[in-house]
Amino acid sequence: MATKISSDASISLYQQVMVELKKEIEIGTYEPGSQIPTEAELTRIYSVGRVTVRRAVDELVCQGYLTKQQGRGTFVNAGKMTRKVHQKDDIQSFSCVCRANGMKAGGRLISRKVISADNELANLLSTAKGDELVLVERVRTADGIPVMLENDYFIRSEFSFLEREKLNGASIFELVSDRTGRTPQGSDPCTLEVVRANAEVAKHLSIPAGEPMFFMNVRFLDAKGLPLFVGHQYIVGSRYIFDI
Amino acid sequence: MATKISSDASISLYQQVMVELKKEIEIGTYEPGSQIPTEAELTRIYSVGRVTVRRAVDELVCQGYLTKQQGRGTFVNAGKMTRKVHQKDDIQSFSCVCRANGMKAGGRLISRKVISADNELANLLSTAKGDELVLVERVRTADGIPVMLENDYFIRSEFSFLEREKLNGASIFELVSDRTGRTPQGSDPCTLEVVRANAEVAKHLSIPAGEPMFFMNVRFLDAKGLPLFVGHQYIVGSRYIFDI
Repeated sequence: MATKISSDASISLYQQVMVELKKEIEIGTYEPGSQIPTEAELTRIYSVGRVTVRRAVDELVCQGYLTKQQGRGTFVNAGKMTRKVHQKDDIQSFSCVCRANGMKAGGRLISRKVISADNELANLLSTAKGDELVLVERVRTADGIPVMLENDYFIRSEFSFLEREKLNGASIFELVSDRTGRTPQGSDPCTLEVVRANAEVAKHLSIPAGEPMFFMNVRFLDAKGLPLFVGHQYIVGSRYIFDI
Repeated sequence: MATKISSDASISLYQQVMVELKKEIEIGTYEPGSQIPTEAELTRIYSVGRVTVRRAVDELVCQGYLTKQQGRGTFVNAGKMTRKVHQKDDIQSFSCVCRANGMKAGGRLISRKVISADNELANLLSTAKGDELVLVERVRTADGIPVMLENDYFIRSEFSFLEREKLNGASIFELVSDRTGRTPQGSDPCTLEVVRANAEVAKHLSIPAGEPMFFMNVRFLDAKGLPLFVGHQYIVGSRYIFDI
């Protein structure tokens, strides 16, 4: 195979291999979910040493293009998405974000439960500790790829329709808006942290445990600034870009 | 040692151990940077099985409280910080963020170089490809703890004073404002991704390679909306919360 790796170029060998590998990923030679060639194979393809190949691959793992799976090989991650994360009065539902990315939003209901509000949720939802909440847990997908696990908390007395609705792929924003006449228009607070996927989250999102993720803790507000619901979102780091 | 782990409680054993460990971290029994007791020791302290201890510790690793270091043990991460990430017209310098958190901002200059603009930087800075840029690379600290590695790119002809200034702990925002009369007032684009620390970034930030981080790619604008400089920030995931 013809390659373009040159030892007298101004950028280092491993960076050249990186650029080549990235290109192959971007043009789809290596598709999302597929395995890339082994170190030994890449060494032959690019006529460089194993240390160079390893460094290039490690860098692409760090940048979120590839994932190493112990004993199995190195795999191409699904592509990243961009979404514009509000100004305060410009929030977007996951369904909207997918549309804006030219992707199809989907979902899978994991569970829905009635729980009692702890102090924190009661405060956020302006209700009393111990009040009944509906907790909806879903995996959200973009073009069929799991992107986030969301846990949404609603006051049961106001949102009991969520106990009966089909929720798999539906937009919760639209449902809430249709049924209550109150549209999510802002968010406060809305914090973003980096965490690692625990075993359960990882299983639902088809990623290895320990993978880096965004954790978003958000309270959605209606047009009057009154609380609608609280969301805890675990978002696969390699599949998401926030544009803030 | 008296413990409060109860086998007939409504929350599971590992969650009780987790709560106890978190408490010990929060009250400072286990200080940032220090090693927590081994699995065997924790098994004795809480009179629970090894699987329970391991699950509790793994969960705290996922949540960013602890870091496992291969062959060395498990260590307490430094505390997280909160910063309010603008609305577009309300951006904050790292020095400001630290003040707001009651922490002392510091820094260490890693390098400053003159480089030539590639296509992307040239576009963002409204200059021509190949034009000279000053690249300032610094580690920023809060109360002495490394929090981010920043790479800031400036047009050399306008910001040559940055080649001479002492930059270790200084606020670049304030320097730019004082010297040019142009204050950073907005950012666009400003994207946030999750990446893993590569070996070099990890070394500068005193974290293990592979640790999850925020990567922020931001162009700062002045009051007229004209580009001031571009920043690439690698932010330690366990030490930061964005409030967006």
